[in-house]
Parts: sequence; structure tokens; C-alpha cells
Amino acid sequence: MNYQVKKSHKTFAGTTHFAEHESQVIGGKMNFSYFLPPSEKPKHGIVWLSGLTCTEENFMAKAGAQKILAEKEALIICPDTSPRGLDLPGEHDSYDFGSGAGFYVNALTEGYKDSYRMYDYIKNEVVALAKGFGVSRLSIMGHSMGGHGALVLGLREPDTFSKVSAFSPIVNPIQCPWGVKAFTGYLGEDRKDLWKTYDACELVSSGHQRNEILIDQGTNDEFFAEQLLTSNFESACKESGQALKVNYRESYDHSYYFISSFIQSHIEFHLS
Amino acid sequence: MNYQVKKSHKTFAGTTHFAEHESQVIGGKMNFSYFLPPSEKPKHGIVWLSGLTCTEENFMAKAGAQKILAEKEALIICPDTSPRGLDLPGEHDSYDFGSGAGFYVNALTEGYKDSYRMYDYIKNEVVALAKGFGVSRLSIMGHSMGGHGALVLGLREPDTFSKVSAFSPIVNPIQCPWGVKAFTGYLGEDRKDLWKTYDACELVSSGHQRNEILIDQGTNDEFFAEQLLTSNFESACKESGQALKVNYRESYDHSYYFISSFIQSHIEFHLS
Repeated sequence: MNYQVKKSHKTFAGTTHFAEHESQVIGGKMNFSYFLPPSEKPKHGIVWLSGLTCTEENFMAKAGAQKILAEKEALIICPDTSPRGLDLPGEHDSYDFGSGAGFYVNALTEGYKDSYRMYDYIKNEVVALAKGFGVSRLSIMGHSMGGHGALVLGLREPDTFSKVSAFSPIVNPIQCPWGVKAFTGYLGEDRKDLWKTYDACELVSSGHQRNEILIDQGTNDEFFAEQLLTSNFESACKESGQALKVNYRESYDHSYYFISSFIQSHIEFHLS
Repeated sequence: MNYQVKKSHKTFAGTTHFAEHESQVIGGKMNFSYFLPPSEKPKHGIVWLSGLTCTEENFMAKAGAQKILAEKEALIICPDTSPRGLDLPGEHDSYDFGSGAGFYVNALTEGYKDSYRMYDYIKNEVVALAKGFGVSRLSIMGHSMGGHGALVLGLREPDTFSKVSAFSPIVNPIQCPWGVKAFTGYLGEDRKDLWKTYDACELVSSGHQRNEILIDQGTNDEFFAEQLLTSNFESACKESGQALKVNYRESYDHSYYFISSFIQSHIEFHLS
């Protein structure tokens, strides 16, 4: 798969790269970043999905993951959170829909259906980019909206992703304001059948299973009660027999200060 | 010293705080951040001075220092890089003068002399804030313009700062475009005598001495040849007998990806 590196920064003897490529799925240029460990021969690759308003940069700049990835000879690849450079109706009006808020679904609504196809983009093209770096094993993790993406992709594509974990994920989007707004806008109000195929709780309840899932959730997260609904996923997993480990982290919030504090344990989980 | 905490993020079991206070030196509100280790009883405190365009946030979000500071029970305090909320002539016209570019000098020029007093602000008020957290020992480090600030403050105030180190510092501002522009604007073209009191090379050559200084400098730094002039400081230190260790880091650039890769060794140097 072709791509152009735009900027590179040596980091912990490896390299953090920022790149772009022509996406067939999206129908235009997409940005992504990736970290190559010093050997440039990673065995394991992790796909990181970011949250609302983020780009391909946030994780690389703030999570402090490169030190651990360098030591463990692992790759991470961070796609952008939506198509860019378009000007669709309503695309730039709010932080939780359109630009920076692709929600990792394949849109069906007018205006969005041709470009906002983030599910297939991750599943096909980001996976192909990661495999192009020579990794023999791939896993997926993410934060908030990206935690939702990681859970949904991990549950629906267990053969592609060896492990799945999430920080502060939206676990039940069809029941929270962020998810309802996004699914209404991308899928349409009348396609509740399809909404369920992008909802981690519904996927687990309808029989999707995989190896143990890891979640870290701060108890001081400002979005915990209204948007994230962690306990709904715990209930769904318990009822269906899906193995799940949730670490509630006392007094931690929704920020990258939280992610950086526990990223090492997630990387170790992915490599185990 | 009074201050108000605006936001706090639990980080590696300690806390990253963002705060503001009324500065007597600056004559208005100033922002700063600080990290308190889990015990909240740090013995050692580090003052971090940031570079051009930065605020009190960049280091906290990007350097990955909290893990190490938490382990070593150390405090770091990061002041903003200039006064804010003013509207002085030319203050917001360029990235390398005015807002975000205080250069750690006490200005003398019309418009700037009443507020742009960053040298005294660091020396008096930031030091007092740090001591207010109970540290018994204080040191100073910084990056680029902040590396210049750390060297100048460290050389002129050896009794205040037990150690001094810098990443990619501007070591000879009176000889580089950034420094000449800033010193002309803040000190006046006719005060070359004063320029020298804010120039690390000149300070060392005129007899200022202290314990060993540590510098890390990336060889792929885009500002290396024109603005940073590292070798001028090596020559000045050699001639005057000032102990200096410069680590040239092959292929690293000017960014926080570089800083994060070597911040642990600098913290260890400060605590040694």
C-alpha cells in the first residue's frame, strides 16, 4: 500500500512518522501516524483509535508509548478520526459529529455515505498499512470514541485482531447522547437494526465473543455517567460469558494524563 | 504565595495541576503548571522553562516526565513563557517576540518594561511558588529559548539552583537572529552591555562559574546551525574552565519527541 511520509521524529531510538495516503475506501487523502521501533522489524502491531476532536497526532505526542514500544519491538499505527478537507452539510458545526468524529461506522446518510466509511477504512486499509510494516500479529485499542471503535472492530473481527482493549470507551452508543447523535447522523434514525451492529453491548448480547477484553476507566471521568456507561458492558459480558477485565482507576479523569499512566499495562496485555 | 488551581489531572498516582496567580513582578495574572508526586512531599523541585510559542502546558502534556518524577518523589513547576492578556504594540505580530516569547529577560523598552520582566519573575516568584511546596533543593532546566533561560538563570543564580541543564538551548543569543530580535525589542539596540548579561556564552567568558552543566542537542535539529550555536558555548566553557557535558544525539530533532527520549537522564542528573 502506497503512502507518503510527511514528517519523521526520532524517538527513543525508533521513529515517529506522520504520513498520508490515498484511501480507496474514503475516496481521498487520509492522514495517519506510526511508530517504528529501532529494529524497524516489529513483530506485533497495534492499531490505536483516538477519540472525539483528535487527529493522528494526539496519541503520539501525549501517551508516552514510544519508550515501551521501542523496548518491546512493537509498532503502533494511529489513523485520523475522520475524513478531512471535505465540506459536507453540518460537517464542521459541532465537535461530536463530522470532522474529528467519524465514530468508526460506514455512513449511509446522504452527503456522508460516500466518504465517512471509517469502519471499512480501519478494517481494510489501516490493517493493510500495518501489515505492510511486516507485523505478523495485530491488535487494537482506543480511547473514548476510539475505545468504542476498538471494541466494535475487535468483537466483529476477532480473526484480524489478536487482542482488544480500551481506555474510557463508549460501550453502549445507542444509549448515550454522543452515540445517538452520531448514529442518527451517519446511519439514519430509521436504521436501528444497523445501530446495533456498531454497539459493543449489543454485539456481545447477540453472540459475538472473543478472548478477554481489557478496559481501564477513571472514576473521576467527566463523561463516565452520561456517555460511557461502563457498567452496561460489564452486565452484557457477564450475561453472555464474554471475559472482561475492567480496572476502575480511582480519581483519574478522561485525559491523556490518565492514558499515559496506564498505557504500559495495555501494551503488555496486547503482547501477552 | 497565593495561587488558584484551575484544573487537576491525576497522573502516575501523583497530580498534574494547572494554576494561576497574581504576579507582583509582572503586574497581572500569570499561568503555571506543576506536578506533585504521590506523597505530595517532594524533596527536590525542578523549574522547567519552555521554548518559543509554548505555554505552561506543553511540557506536562508531551515530555513524559511524570512517571519518573513520581518514582523519584520530585516536583516540577512550569511557568508560562510570557505575560498574557495584554495588547502591547507588536506583541502578537510574530512567534518569536512578545506573546509566548518572553526570553527570560527584564525588558527596558517602552511598552514592555512594565510587564515583560520574566527574569525577575522566575528568580523571585516561580522560585517562591516551588519552595511553597516544601522542596529543600531547587534546580532548573529548559528547552530552546527556555534552555537559554535555564543557562542564564543557572549561571547568574548558582545559590538558588543546585543544577542546570538544557535541551537544544540558545546558548549565544547576541549572535543569533532569534536573540538579536528579542534583545533589540526588549532591551533596546543601544544596550549591548545589558545584552551580555543575558547571554550564556558571555556570562561564562566574563567569569560566572558553577558545577557541571548538562546539554542534550539533536544533530538533526532544524535550528542547530543558525540559532543554537552549541559549539560557541563549548568553546567558552573550555576557555574559562566551566565544566560542561554536551550529548549530541544522532538524528534527533528540536521537538518534544527528542525531549521525551532523554528527559529521564536529565531528571537523574538534577537529583544526583
